[in-house]
Amino acid sequence: MNAMSVGTDAGLLAPTWAGTPAAAAVTDEAWLQAMLDAEVALARAQHAVGLTPAAAVKAIASAADVERLDLVALSHAARGSANPVVPLVSAFMEVVAAKDPAAAEYVHRGSTSQDILDSAAMLVARRVLGLIAADLDRTAAALAALADAHRHTVLAGRTLAQHAVPTTFGLKAAGWLRLVADALVRVRSVASALPAQLGGAAGTLAAYREYAALDRGEGGGRACDSSGVELLGPFAKALGLTEPVLPWHTVRTPVAELGAVLQLVTGALGKFALDVQTLSRTEIGEVSEPAAAGRGASSAMPQKRNPALATLIVAAARQVPAHALVLAQCLLAEDERPAGAWHAEWQPLREALRLAGGAAHTAVELAEGLIVHPDRMRANLKLTGGALVTERLAVALAPVLGKARAKKLLTAASVEAADTGRTIGEVLSGHPELSACFTPAELSELLDPARYTGAADALVDRALRGYGDHGDNAGVR
Amino acid sequence: MNAMSVGTDAGLLAPTWAGTPAAAAVTDEAWLQAMLDAEVALARAQHAVGLTPAAAVKAIASAADVERLDLVALSHAARGSANPVVPLVSAFMEVVAAKDPAAAEYVHRGSTSQDILDSAAMLVARRVLGLIAADLDRTAAALAALADAHRHTVLAGRTLAQHAVPTTFGLKAAGWLRLVADALVRVRSVASALPAQLGGAAGTLAAYREYAALDRGEGGGRACDSSGVELLGPFAKALGLTEPVLPWHTVRTPVAELGAVLQLVTGALGKFALDVQTLSRTEIGEVSEPAAAGRGASSAMPQKRNPALATLIVAAARQVPAHALVLAQCLLAEDERPAGAWHAEWQPLREALRLAGGAAHTAVELAEGLIVHPDRMRANLKLTGGALVTERLAVALAPVLGKARAKKLLTAASVEAADTGRTIGEVLSGHPELSACFTPAELSELLDPARYTGAADALVDRALRGYGDHGDNAGVR
Amino acid sequence: MNAMSVGTDAGLLAPTWAGTPAAAAVTDEAWLQAMLDAEVALARAQHAVGLTPAAAVKAIASAADVERLDLVALSHAARGSANPVVPLVSAFMEVVAAKDPAAAEYVHRGSTSQDILDSAAMLVARRVLGLIAADLDRTAAALAALADAHRHTVLAGRTLAQHAVPTTFGLKAAGWLRLVADALVRVRSVASALPAQLGGAAGTLAAYREYAALDRGEGGGRACDSSGVELLGPFAKALGLTEPVLPWHTVRTPVAELGAVLQLVTGALGKFALDVQTLSRTEIGEVSEPAAAGRGASSAMPQKRNPALATLIVAAARQVPAHALVLAQCLLAEDERPAGAWHAEWQPLREALRLAGGAAHTAVELAEGLIVHPDRMRANLKLTGGALVTERLAVALAPVLGKARAKKLLTAASVEAADTGRTIGEVLSGHPELSACFTPAELSELLDPARYTGAADALVDRALRGYGDHGDNAGVR
Amino acid sequence: MNAMSVGTDAGLLAPTWAGTPAAAAVTDEAWLQAMLDAEVALARAQHAVGLTPAAAVKAIASAADVERLDLVALSHAARGSANPVVPLVSAFMEVVAAKDPAAAEYVHRGSTSQDILDSAAMLVARRVLGLIAADLDRTAAALAALADAHRHTVLAGRTLAQHAVPTTFGLKAAGWLRLVADALVRVRSVASALPAQLGGAAGTLAAYREYAALDRGEGGGRACDSSGVELLGPFAKALGLTEPVLPWHTVRTPVAELGAVLQLVTGALGKFALDVQTLSRTEIGEVSEPAAAGRGASSAMPQKRNPALATLIVAAARQVPAHALVLAQCLLAEDERPAGAWHAEWQPLREALRLAGGAAHTAVELAEGLIVHPDRMRANLKLTGGALVTERLAVALAPVLGKARAKKLLTAASVEAADTGRTIGEVLSGHPELSACFTPAELSELLDPARYTGAADALVDRALRGYGDHGDNAGVR
Repeated sequence: MNAMSVGTDAGLLAPTWAGTPAAAAVTDEAWLQAMLDAEVALARAQHAVGLTPAAAVKAIASAADVERLDLVALSHAARGSANPVVPLVSAFMEVVAAKDPAAAEYVHRGSTSQDILDSAAMLVARRVLGLIAADLDRTAAALAALADAHRHTVLAGRTLAQHAVPTTFGLKAAGWLRLVADALVRVRSVASALPAQLGGAAGTLAAYREYAALDRGEGGGRACDSSGVELLGPFAKALGLTEPVLPWHTVRTPVAELGAVLQLVTGALGKFALDVQTLSRTEIGEVSEPAAAGRGASSAMPQKRNPALATLIVAAARQVPAHALVLAQCLLAEDERPAGAWHAEWQPLREALRLAGGAAHTAVELAEGLIVHPDRMRANLKLTGGALVTERLAVALAPVLGKARAKKLLTAASVEAADTGRTIGEVLSGHPELSACFTPAELSELLDPARYTGAADALVDRALRGYGDHGDNAGVR
Repeated sequence: MNAMSVGTDAGLLAPTWAGTPAAAAVTDEAWLQAMLDAEVALARAQHAVGLTPAAAVKAIASAADVERLDLVALSHAARGSANPVVPLVSAFMEVVAAKDPAAAEYVHRGSTSQDILDSAAMLVARRVLGLIAADLDRTAAALAALADAHRHTVLAGRTLAQHAVPTTFGLKAAGWLRLVADALVRVRSVASALPAQLGGAAGTLAAYREYAALDRGEGGGRACDSSGVELLGPFAKALGLTEPVLPWHTVRTPVAELGAVLQLVTGALGKFALDVQTLSRTEIGEVSEPAAAGRGASSAMPQKRNPALATLIVAAARQVPAHALVLAQCLLAEDERPAGAWHAEWQPLREALRLAGGAAHTAVELAEGLIVHPDRMRANLKLTGGALVTERLAVALAPVLGKARAKKLLTAASVEAADTGRTIGEVLSGHPELSACFTPAELSELLDPARYTGAADALVDRALRGYGDHGDNAGVR
Repeated sequence: MNAMSVGTDAGLLAPTWAGTPAAAAVTDEAWLQAMLDAEVALARAQHAVGLTPAAAVKAIASAADVERLDLVALSHAARGSANPVVPLVSAFMEVVAAKDPAAAEYVHRGSTSQDILDSAAMLVARRVLGLIAADLDRTAAALAALADAHRHTVLAGRTLAQHAVPTTFGLKAAGWLRLVADALVRVRSVASALPAQLGGAAGTLAAYREYAALDRGEGGGRACDSSGVELLGPFAKALGLTEPVLPWHTVRTPVAELGAVLQLVTGALGKFALDVQTLSRTEIGEVSEPAAAGRGASSAMPQKRNPALATLIVAAARQVPAHALVLAQCLLAEDERPAGAWHAEWQPLREALRLAGGAAHTAVELAEGLIVHPDRMRANLKLTGGALVTERLAVALAPVLGKARAKKLLTAASVEAADTGRTIGEVLSGHPELSACFTPAELSELLDPARYTGAADALVDRALRGYGDHGDNAGVR
Repeated sequence: MNAMSVGTDAGLLAPTWAGTPAAAAVTDEAWLQAMLDAEVALARAQHAVGLTPAAAVKAIASAADVERLDLVALSHAARGSANPVVPLVSAFMEVVAAKDPAAAEYVHRGSTSQDILDSAAMLVARRVLGLIAADLDRTAAALAALADAHRHTVLAGRTLAQHAVPTTFGLKAAGWLRLVADALVRVRSVASALPAQLGGAAGTLAAYREYAALDRGEGGGRACDSSGVELLGPFAKALGLTEPVLPWHTVRTPVAELGAVLQLVTGALGKFALDVQTLSRTEIGEVSEPAAAGRGASSAMPQKRNPALATLIVAAARQVPAHALVLAQCLLAEDERPAGAWHAEWQPLREALRLAGGAAHTAVELAEGLIVHPDRMRANLKLTGGALVTERLAVALAPVLGKARAKKLLTAASVEAADTGRTIGEVLSGHPELSACFTPAELSELLDPARYTGAADALVDRALRGYGDHGDNAGVR
């Protein structure tokens, strides 16, 4: 081991989160500080139930500054115990003792590594979920505005990479909104339920209780029934977390749920970003990313304006489910504390948090600045010479020809149009069965994509209303 | 292609679900029937809004029997369109037409493959979630009974595979209960929100609306504003599903959430099963699986009684997160319908449903029949000669020696005890500092594991209360 | 349990493999037959080393027909032992005994469930890998032909969804070829190394050896040193598999490697399919899938010709890595045989095999029938008015202006061209610095995409040569 | 963005790799330096083919020091282009220009971001694979020594968490050896094939070729056929990597293979570690981890000696397959360069490299220092009163009673023994059928576990020989 082994966590390989607030919230320093915060909260809670003296709490709180610890040395020493709390407690006790030796006795009193690390993790997670919620909220607002503004902007609906039938850009944005709003509801729900962890060595709270008995003069095997659970509420409160029903050392629902909600966030944003990438393809050109100096530049090609924001989001969306999977598999944690399943959670949780946080941060800029090109949408609608509305023609012809025959005739007409370069209208206009059914004006109207957007408008309204409802039950902002 | 390519879906390689109700609910036959159910629900909904005539609905409903279709031929034909609904609609129209040619025109009217397949998937999922909820409920009841019955049954708490401090089997069961109860709450929440799918070719409801206009004599390009969204409610109702805010062809939250909740189910049960495996190890022997003829037999070893039920559950828990991951990644669905991301959902969803269903079915038997051996627990408590309660001694000594020195002394005593085969009590009894602190009787009491179970009893109560609360908001049973 | 729980494994939800040879090779029936094949191979091997009499081998072999067993009953009974071999052995012994009671004593002699099931799995895997290798070989040949035929067909190279610089369709096909050829090499390598499994209850071969001693009159505790390992070779040979160095009950490299190679197969084919989907987008139109009756049809839209083959392949490629992950995680198999990690392998292995097999089967048709539209490629090259070759201009201008200034000038020109609708040539032609450098003819030549395809031609040659080399070391075909 | 967003990459949450050589090899700094190394190698290669002048190469090489760049600023700027090479090239050109303005023109000449980043990734990967190979080699040697030393140390073989039949610790170690040796072979194979990346903007080498033409006085649209591929060899050589057949911007086999081999490494080591955890359980106690100051300490319990090394390894083994999955899915990279699939590779690759590197580093210490307790193994063999060898009795009785009846009798005897606390020998000794078959001495011998270890000894020899073979074809050490 040497100093060379320690790098800067700058996000060189993770531009999705490099330099974003979420990244700052999950650094080694931030995590270590959160562990110190948990130690302080424990002292406060013990004071609140009449144990640790105020002076000791004060000394502990004033010493609880990550800058007083040697982060690198602690991290390396963590290999000995397979977790960083063991060396942290020793080092922190020394810091406290240097100021107030008596107070040092009250550090980590009755506690266990997992109480500190899990509580710190929830603290960190809550901060990042708060950032994410705020960014999803802004993203949703921007998407709602797009949905509203473009409720009559017609473009080709695409399925299996082919033009299908017309839709509106408003409805497309409404779908993105719906995804983001769903994710936001779940983020708030999970964030508001993140529990503090307090259980002691095997989740019985035994040592906490033992110290309580000791302080109350009941020590030395003479403990009466001081239950120990009275610490749970004050500890959770001191951290701004939820009071747990039970210690959850191996009841890992909160961590698995975090994974699930983070992949929902990046999945929702990823769908939006993927559509932006498709729609901004050179041949399609229906949207552009917001321009900014250097944005989307290539190291080789002067003309390039890459969809960089969307790419950052998609890159995150491809990674987070794998981290969520690790967290889900860690539900299989044996005994009262597992030998590996707990330890495997930390990095995936951190990475999922900052990827989702970075993606949400990026999505705000993308959604607020997205440039829409209705002219290109209109131009693309004409590419297939009207084949885009053959579904509508099939309906119109069904009463005359029957559904099956109508579909067959229009399939043949579509092939003929594609092969000859003529429009569907031209191909069909000479068809005797059709001229009997429709006047040329009627046919022309039937072939107008802008008149075949179905209930897109009403659906946009439903999405906007649905989003408004979500907006009300705002827990974490 | 030949008939040889088609096997029996007996679950030969999946004993977790072979022969269970969940398996029956997700067969190819069940899924195909659910698609037919969706076609019938569409006809009913169209009738409910004044379109399709009652006679056609009746003809469609009476024809909608999976046994009238050639499942194998349909499945193979599905390769042409990359989904089974295209050939299904042709085949089903023929079946209907054979009885009532006019009714055949009303089959799949205005619809698209994804409306049918997604709605069928939600129908199938709802049925399996119902089975799972009922089995989790029974499992939770059995675990609650274990927690209550064994609140004073002391055993070694184990962390990182080593004895840590004492706990109670009641608290252990309370932890399992908590996991199962959490999963049950989420299962019910997800099950009660499963949406029907209805959107038409690109999610605008355009063709549904066009047919409505046609039937109402507004056809041929003369459609007034019949919005089309009026179908959503009746269609969902006919299926017993939730009315969607928007078509969700590429708003895949419902499917991703299903994956997340199913992995929570198998993760919760998997933790329980993993602990059963550990506790039933030959050397530990603290629990046994319920006996049954042939249960746990080996093909080679006459004496074997393997933890077969727990193994079935663990096997499922190792697989479901991978399926959930695929579903989560399919949130990245491009355009109005994706070319692969939708198609990749079907098998993982089916497999996750039956694995979770089979695991829940198995867990009922395991939880209800689990045999507890308190004598072995007591015997194992003595294995370390009292080292199990050195944490308590450390607390008791802290006021005298200081925390750090107390811990050091006890670490040394533990090593000495382990090396010499003496008990901690014997090692410590000769120690001058200790005899000054404690009488032999006090020391003996301090060394009694049964007196160091902390707040286990109170925590069991909290878990039982927490479970009772869950039990009230019973949605899906 | 009832018969309703058993469906037909028709592939309704898996059109990628429905009806393909790979699907037929991995049915429950095929897998059960492979287990019987392993039992027969064991008897043959024991005969080969002088133990089991020829008559018993003959009776066993003639009885080893899956049709004589009740597959469904076996599958359900497998729940009792958590694996299907325990009930299989009982049932198979009865079948043999009905013909030749003495022979029944020689069934599964000294064996254990895992020897039979693992050997069967390798047998099944080898068959599917053989199918895959043959299909990859045909796919590679078709791609090689495309690469050769289109070495001068110029199209827009695309990076981050934007036109970048020109490339050739030949080079694009060469990249697909390279992926497929790499996968083929690995498939053959893995297939040729698949080991038989033989270890007995805990991998010591003890019972095999004990029976040998017994048959040789050394039984009853009087065994001399008949090592037992002499069975490994004949057993492997009887199955056409490789002789293992050790029993690999918990040395799961072979299974993890299978997962890795199958995801390489679908990943390689998936990249090809994804490009086909992109290039066949309505706006791009540079390739089409081969046409066939019903291929690519929609249930709603008459004009649709979806890239169905590519979609089937992409759907598989999205699933197989998740199965491979489960197999990789099952490397963590505790003890001499694990309680879940082994059991979790079977379904993912089967599904990965048939998804990869179905994808390879589908890729043959796609590669052999792919329709290329050079005219659309040429048309798309013009879309950006020459911005596609600004990289080349930047090089040409670098000596005059310096790299940085040249790039800046061309970035500005690209923006101007895009904003005004003029071509890069038009924008630049009036530029004083440029007219000093190039004659109009030189500029025109610099702006010709067909003259800026770099070493594409030479690279195609390298890929074709590389593929030829692979073709030689053909192991499994 | 502010400086607060940047932490120290100390590995606080990843004790598996904190402070290990592998961690040092993959820091942001190391990766950035590798990118500079790639830029230098490009200049050297261009010089080698007669282009870039020696003075420029020298200036570029002397400037290529990561300490001259602002890592944090670069990382944050990377968000604009979605990759760090774009700002790196600008910054590096400035550094070079400050020394030698003419040389700056030769920086990144004709190149593209992906050429630099991919080549850097392979360089980093190769270094870590070298570390891993060396550590696997040492681990294998230690395991081989254990296998050899303990070839006659008998212990209970365990299957499905139950005693099965006896085995030897030597054979157990041989299985671990086999896994590690297999992984080592694959590590060396992959390491020796890691390719340099060189393709230019769309993989045609066009700009490299254009600059070559320019330097050779063929510029300005007058390029003759200088193929461009002549750079591939010198570039790869300058980096110590393999020459690629084709640019592999979207031919991602090398990256997917890296993922596959890294999960094989942690899977192999993970199985070893998992067994160590099981065998060191308090109740089993058959092995201990090597002791070291502070190793395995708890923050709460003085007596604790946790299997910390094994836990570090298992924690890694639970994470790496998820990273490998992301890499495998990135095979689906669209076009000539994808918008997200490439970007999603970087962090998972880095994390998988350091997790595997840290696990291998840890495994050396665990394997070399593992403490074996044959006495505890012997004691545990007696726990079931001889049930461990009922398989052997079943064989011995088969000729007399038939296989089925013998197994039935012994199953009953095992149950009786377990229920009554008597040994199998005691239960059976009174049995009339048995006394007819065996003398008490014979029965006693049959019941001796040490005489029923099958071919364990011969299998150890096979494993040692197999390992020796691997040892010979040592590529990367």
